[in-house]
Amino acid sequence: MTTTANKPSSIDKNPPITGRTAIVAGNGLLPLAVAESLRKQGGNPLIIAIKGEAQPELYEGDHAEISIVELGGLVKILKAEGISNVVLAGGIRHRPEFRAALRPGNGNLIALLRFLRAFRLGDDGLLRAVIATIESYGFRVLGAHEIVPDIVAPAPGTITRKRADGESIANMKAARQAAIMIGSLDIGQAAVAIGRRVVALEGVEGTDAMLQRVADLRREKRINRRGGVLVKCAKPQQEVRADLPAIGVSTVENAVKAGLKGIAIEARRTLILGFSETVAAADEAGLFIETFEQEPSS
Amino acid sequence: MTTTANKPSSIDKNPPITGRTAIVAGNGLLPLAVAESLRKQGGNPLIIAIKGEAQPELYEGDHAEISIVELGGLVKILKAEGISNVVLAGGIRHRPEFRAALRPGNGNLIALLRFLRAFRLGDDGLLRAVIATIESYGFRVLGAHEIVPDIVAPAPGTITRKRADGESIANMKAARQAAIMIGSLDIGQAAVAIGRRVVALEGVEGTDAMLQRVADLRREKRINRRGGVLVKCAKPQQEVRADLPAIGVSTVENAVKAGLKGIAIEARRTLILGFSETVAAADEAGLFIETFEQEPSS
Repeated sequence: MTTTANKPSSIDKNPPITGRTAIVAGNGLLPLAVAESLRKQGGNPLIIAIKGEAQPELYEGDHAEISIVELGGLVKILKAEGISNVVLAGGIRHRPEFRAALRPGNGNLIALLRFLRAFRLGDDGLLRAVIATIESYGFRVLGAHEIVPDIVAPAPGTITRKRADGESIANMKAARQAAIMIGSLDIGQAAVAIGRRVVALEGVEGTDAMLQRVADLRREKRINRRGGVLVKCAKPQQEVRADLPAIGVSTVENAVKAGLKGIAIEARRTLILGFSETVAAADEAGLFIETFEQEPSS
Repeated sequence: MTTTANKPSSIDKNPPITGRTAIVAGNGLLPLAVAESLRKQGGNPLIIAIKGEAQPELYEGDHAEISIVELGGLVKILKAEGISNVVLAGGIRHRPEFRAALRPGNGNLIALLRFLRAFRLGDDGLLRAVIATIESYGFRVLGAHEIVPDIVAPAPGTITRKRADGESIANMKAARQAAIMIGSLDIGQAAVAIGRRVVALEGVEGTDAMLQRVADLRREKRINRRGGVLVKCAKPQQEVRADLPAIGVSTVENAVKAGLKGIAIEARRTLILGFSETVAAADEAGLFIETFEQEPSS
């Protein structure tokens, strides 16, 4: 066990948020949750929807749209709209082709060049470079969890009625070791262990597709052991202001289809989108959701 | 670069093979290659086909059949047939249910109990225990490569007309690091890197299914970078007498479907089933096949 203070990049307390906020919206439910939360707090967020990624509902309010290969134009929009804060929310499913970004008319050239360099660095490098570039223009970059703190996975413990049994704890241990390892290489954030061995590792396909694969392997009788656990955790080197791993109702549904007994997520560095609905879905299906601390890597 | 002498479990030179050999045959083409090679050398191997795994052609010669949960009966068969040597060849796609092995009538009880304990140890543990148990009854356990040495991947170099370019070498490096890592955890033996990042890791699904996944991700435009490399290597702790990673014509075909530029396999600890056909298929498709040495882990 470790305390938050020991962790390499834990979520810190930050000064209050002032001025208008823009949400750079990728896929999934997180951008919507951030927008709703800001509106409830009396704000009028600007949605900057990423083409082909952002949910259609996001186009209803005050919004702009950019392509992932036009990130260079982002700074221009932020300046024109008098934005103070930027939240990067949601994932990018469609990886851009490097050379597509080279076509002319992609906005602010210096920003573009910095982004382009970052494309070679993988997810982590790209996100860090995007954040550093936005900050270098004087904007404040916030994590989604700073705006919607109630979706952050709580301190270690069980958040469902069902708890992990001994076999599930052994599965958690095996899958957690693998998930941290592939996270440290910036490959994925999730793993499934069944019968105390890891059977699936997340790559570009994402968590839902990985769970689907486990369901297929069971149907084909390639996996005959019962139970099993999905583990999702942040990368050891995670930038907490973007790309925090997340689960939601669909994760629970897919875990059920894969015949798993439960889900274990990292405390404080994972998001639960639709917290109460997700816990309710797990309770209904008899699944456990546990949160755990990543051991310090030292 | 390292020499073979430094390696933790390289393939050693062994005394000549005398007496009758039994082939415990799992799935894939390896058992057939071993049987054919032994017959060419004037031997009359006994095939012990694993039910639901071994290819139908294996049932043509002198054979017995066992279920994977009846491994306890193996020693009985070996004794009754006057076997001197045992080769474990081919993979096991269908993981046995632990409790299924507990039903009565499974043959030699002591052997069974040892095998059962091993079921908890994962692939490596199971294979080591199976080998140790067979040896404890006085049989010699051989690696398939000792019988068919010409299918062993040669010393580091290129075995196709096409060579890896700079981008492919970067992909090889990334995928190799990941493949060694998941191998050290006994999860899988293969990884695919595209655009210098690892996009897929092999779990229980196997290499062909992983390549199919990469093909799907490309079709869905989730991967837009061109090229990419499949890397397959032995686990650092590999028992070389069983479960050596293998490629063949189907691997080349699936790599082509996945849009990859080539395949890199570990020198001396990987098998190429149908060596000349595999190289011919790669040459025809314009793919490279390179072999490399695993860095010493120390």
